[in-house]
Amino acid sequence: MLLEKIHSPEDVKKLDNYSLQNLAREVRSALIEKLSKHGGHVGSNLGMVEATIALHYVFDSPKDKIVYDVSHQSYAHKMLTGRAAAFLDESKYDDVTGYTEPCESEHDHFMIGHTSTSISLALGLATARDLKGERSNVIAVIGDGSLSGGEAFEGLDNAGEYATNFIVVVNDNEMSIAENHGGLYGSLAELRNTLGKSQNNYFKSLGFDYLYVESGNDVLALITAFKKVKDSTKPVVVHIHTKKGKGLPFAEQNKEAFHWSIPFDAKTGFQDWGSGESWGGVLSGYLMEKIKSDSKVVVIHSAVPAGIGFFAPQRKEAGRQFIDVGIAEEHAVALASGLAKGGAKPIYSTHSTFIQRTYDQLSQDLCANNNPATLLVTMSGADGMNDTTHLCIFDIALMSNIPNLAYLCPTCVEEAKAMMDYAIDRTLCPMAIRIPNGVAHREGEFDKDYSKVSYKMDKKGSKVAIIGLGDFYQRGVAVAAELAKQGVEATVINPRFASGVDVELLESLKADHQVVVTLENGVAEGGFGQKIATFYGNSNMKVLVKGLKKEFYDKVGFAELCDRNRLTPEQIAEDVKSALV
Amino acid sequence: MLLEKIHSPEDVKKLDNYSLQNLAREVRSALIEKLSKHGGHVGSNLGMVEATIALHYVFDSPKDKIVYDVSHQSYAHKMLTGRAAAFLDESKYDDVTGYTEPCESEHDHFMIGHTSTSISLALGLATARDLKGERSNVIAVIGDGSLSGGEAFEGLDNAGEYATNFIVVVNDNEMSIAENHGGLYGSLAELRNTLGKSQNNYFKSLGFDYLYVESGNDVLALITAFKKVKDSTKPVVVHIHTKKGKGLPFAEQNKEAFHWSIPFDAKTGFQDWGSGESWGGVLSGYLMEKIKSDSKVVVIHSAVPAGIGFFAPQRKEAGRQFIDVGIAEEHAVALASGLAKGGAKPIYSTHSTFIQRTYDQLSQDLCANNNPATLLVTMSGADGMNDTTHLCIFDIALMSNIPNLAYLCPTCVEEAKAMMDYAIDRTLCPMAIRIPNGVAHREGEFDKDYSKVSYKMDKKGSKVAIIGLGDFYQRGVAVAAELAKQGVEATVINPRFASGVDVELLESLKADHQVVVTLENGVAEGGFGQKIATFYGNSNMKVLVKGLKKEFYDKVGFAELCDRNRLTPEQIAEDVKSALV
Repeated sequence: MLLEKIHSPEDVKKLDNYSLQNLAREVRSALIEKLSKHGGHVGSNLGMVEATIALHYVFDSPKDKIVYDVSHQSYAHKMLTGRAAAFLDESKYDDVTGYTEPCESEHDHFMIGHTSTSISLALGLATARDLKGERSNVIAVIGDGSLSGGEAFEGLDNAGEYATNFIVVVNDNEMSIAENHGGLYGSLAELRNTLGKSQNNYFKSLGFDYLYVESGNDVLALITAFKKVKDSTKPVVVHIHTKKGKGLPFAEQNKEAFHWSIPFDAKTGFQDWGSGESWGGVLSGYLMEKIKSDSKVVVIHSAVPAGIGFFAPQRKEAGRQFIDVGIAEEHAVALASGLAKGGAKPIYSTHSTFIQRTYDQLSQDLCANNNPATLLVTMSGADGMNDTTHLCIFDIALMSNIPNLAYLCPTCVEEAKAMMDYAIDRTLCPMAIRIPNGVAHREGEFDKDYSKVSYKMDKKGSKVAIIGLGDFYQRGVAVAAELAKQGVEATVINPRFASGVDVELLESLKADHQVVVTLENGVAEGGFGQKIATFYGNSNMKVLVKGLKKEFYDKVGFAELCDRNRLTPEQIAEDVKSALV
Repeated sequence: MLLEKIHSPEDVKKLDNYSLQNLAREVRSALIEKLSKHGGHVGSNLGMVEATIALHYVFDSPKDKIVYDVSHQSYAHKMLTGRAAAFLDESKYDDVTGYTEPCESEHDHFMIGHTSTSISLALGLATARDLKGERSNVIAVIGDGSLSGGEAFEGLDNAGEYATNFIVVVNDNEMSIAENHGGLYGSLAELRNTLGKSQNNYFKSLGFDYLYVESGNDVLALITAFKKVKDSTKPVVVHIHTKKGKGLPFAEQNKEAFHWSIPFDAKTGFQDWGSGESWGGVLSGYLMEKIKSDSKVVVIHSAVPAGIGFFAPQRKEAGRQFIDVGIAEEHAVALASGLAKGGAKPIYSTHSTFIQRTYDQLSQDLCANNNPATLLVTMSGADGMNDTTHLCIFDIALMSNIPNLAYLCPTCVEEAKAMMDYAIDRTLCPMAIRIPNGVAHREGEFDKDYSKVSYKMDKKGSKVAIIGLGDFYQRGVAVAAELAKQGVEATVINPRFASGVDVELLESLKADHQVVVTLENGVAEGGFGQKIATFYGNSNMKVLVKGLKKEFYDKVGFAELCDRNRLTPEQIAEDVKSALV
């Protein structure tokens, strides 16, 4: 096996044409085998096999520096840079992360997971090289889908005026996670159709030289192209046309489902997602009803429509009441503000980790204008994605401190629906709803009015009050049960709002409570509980703020995270008891 | 006078060609008169006089909706939509804001002040129009400088695939605030030089139709062009070539100095900036020394280089060690991260209000990668810009809750220099420094080590400890003086770090203090003081968190803001005394 003998890019350079093609076959089979057993990003990695081999054949990494956008397509790169065992030996599958990781290898320069950042990061490396008077090639590899993100444009535009070596490989597989959206994709199609000759050339309009490679899965054609641009002294785009999912028929067919996959049957492509209830299912059902009952309702998404269960059939059914703006979160928020101002009822949804792109748009475009758009912040909390680059634990601090924005945290599906009912139909001020990972149900009536910050006291006890925000409400109930075993009948409160304090209710607790404990599924610093601690700062009330310590956790399991941060019901009850003394 | 008879756009439509040209002259003189007496955005408004008249002549506002980017060029629009008195009558100058403002007029659709947002906001209006089955024109007016912002690109790209009426007027005056930066500006120049015929057409590459108007200050030529695109059924860019500062010779000459101006001599253009010390002067002097002494130091800016005192001579002197990326804050942060990774010593500076654009880049591109870039967050605090859209009071909550980022707050110039010395030369982790508005000096030695969160106890007292962050340190000293009058010798602490707590020092206060009061020049929610309140939550220490209430303040003077938020030294001392009882 060739792959076992590749310990570094030096070994790739020694191969003849025939062996290079064999290596591509071996890399592809190893990818399919690991992906089917382990899950991961399927389509992009299969499409990038040949380009990765060609890059390492032509350029001299790590002296020449390759920066992968999102870096979810860097598996072949990892195999060729000393990490093949993590793809060949099942017991070592978890020795590497799913993204580039400087701790793993000198061939990886950044930890990357969000889109559209590679050009700016790589331009920084190129500029540092020039300041230091060194010579080398700097290459940014970016997929067509990532080009719709504003940060990628800003990077391209700035790079376009440099007179220096800077190579951007555009990996055009004609897809984002779902289909591409944006006028740019029309002109990329024109470039493909004319083999790069179309006059509508986005890259040239930003000052880049341009080279087109139709056979983006032909390692020899790619080598020829990369040799042409090696050591170039001005910015150049190499636009390569690849096939997403190449070599795995069902992934080539169903590109969206195999962008990222859980383990699957390597023969049939069957993915066993189970039959449990998911927030995607809940949200798509609910939103589709809203769409049908009101032609002014419009659901906006930015390239991860599966997050709200909007797959191809739902998107088709929603018609023009569903807008996928592509990877363009900033635009999505401003668009929602404009829609709300224009009298429509926009609902923009993205994951907690991606809402981070939009602080200024939330503040300026939406909240300062007080337009009644609704936001759904999905996959929020520490019990979901846990790669450092995809943590969903910072949104409470981010969103709960913006004026005019109510940040609602439902404790269950039923309450989420009540909140959405209120948010979507009102015509005053923006509202965001934090959608957790776990699907919980609760019986009872849920308030239909969220016009002002008000908490719900679900159980009146004394001495101790437990305020459990959103999906940590049930954890609060579990803490109450622990305390009850020890003879303390605690008050249980559902605060509903992360963005403010219910002065009246909190004041009332002073009469017969000594300890208040707040629970939130996210980083505590800057978040919800700190508002409560501040409220009681000038009183005798003891306040325990329970949430995660501010940190970039790297693939730490939820149970361990809770244990480390003293967030298990038992630990919390213990800390409350100590405070009671 | 014609202008006095213009009560709405209807009145503009009644004018003949000759009167339209006279109207332009009157609008321009009124602008010059008001601007010279009152200050404001000079260049962009003078350049947009004819285009604004032509827009209101051709389109039917407010049914047709015009959205101005940044909206700092909307003065002529205000004059033509019923607000001329605010430009003609000195006693009414402050009846209008310097930006579009929906509270003022039905012709203004959004409160806007940051750049690059108009296209997305206007596309929202256009989409709402289509969902409701209405017919009208939607026009976004955007300057060439704003095109470098990622949000504008995202908006253009998304709009490019709509089959509907959507008109973008690109006001190309060949300038950003300073000169433009980016490859795009090369192709805009090509378009101007070829009267719109160049093949390198950024707008066409994003799916837009395109029309060029060379005489962007000729009201009749503009009317002809706008008539051509009125009621068009697909997205179109009208690229108009205007002259920034048109009609005011020194503003035409010195475009950067007259982008925005304080009141000036209408004959000579003399601007009396006074001779007081400014942070711009301090920073430019300091940074230039660093640049000269170390070829790896590189100062990065995003289109407001005056903020660090880098005017044309300084920029020239710094050579390639100064990079203006244009309006592209996201890129700037990622570029800084790449530069730091590559071994350079990048210092990125922007105003507090604009750092809001970069939360995700700070978190992902910079801090998760722990690259040692330095950030200077200028004009921070409530005592500077006070338009709602330019508030500089949210950065503490934004930046102090990102892992790995030390957010340092100097109490004076000398301490800021000590902090910069440490930050720029270290090779571990990113560091941000909050630069206030007021320039203060203090004597004494300032620590050269900021490797871990540690506060400085400058005066040891008892009962009360005052923790004054950054430029509010001196306010803390004033509070201590107030308390001393009443027999309380308070402890005074300079916390230096907004981003964490000094556990040891805070623990030590428990021995002989009953009240801790924190002071910060920004919104308190999510900020510094709440960390202190949380730290003491489970103790008997009383904590008063003093900062601004979370709110979009609109042109509220600093003294009034302090008074409203009980932030005067007297009020603070009074509250402390009450808490002591």
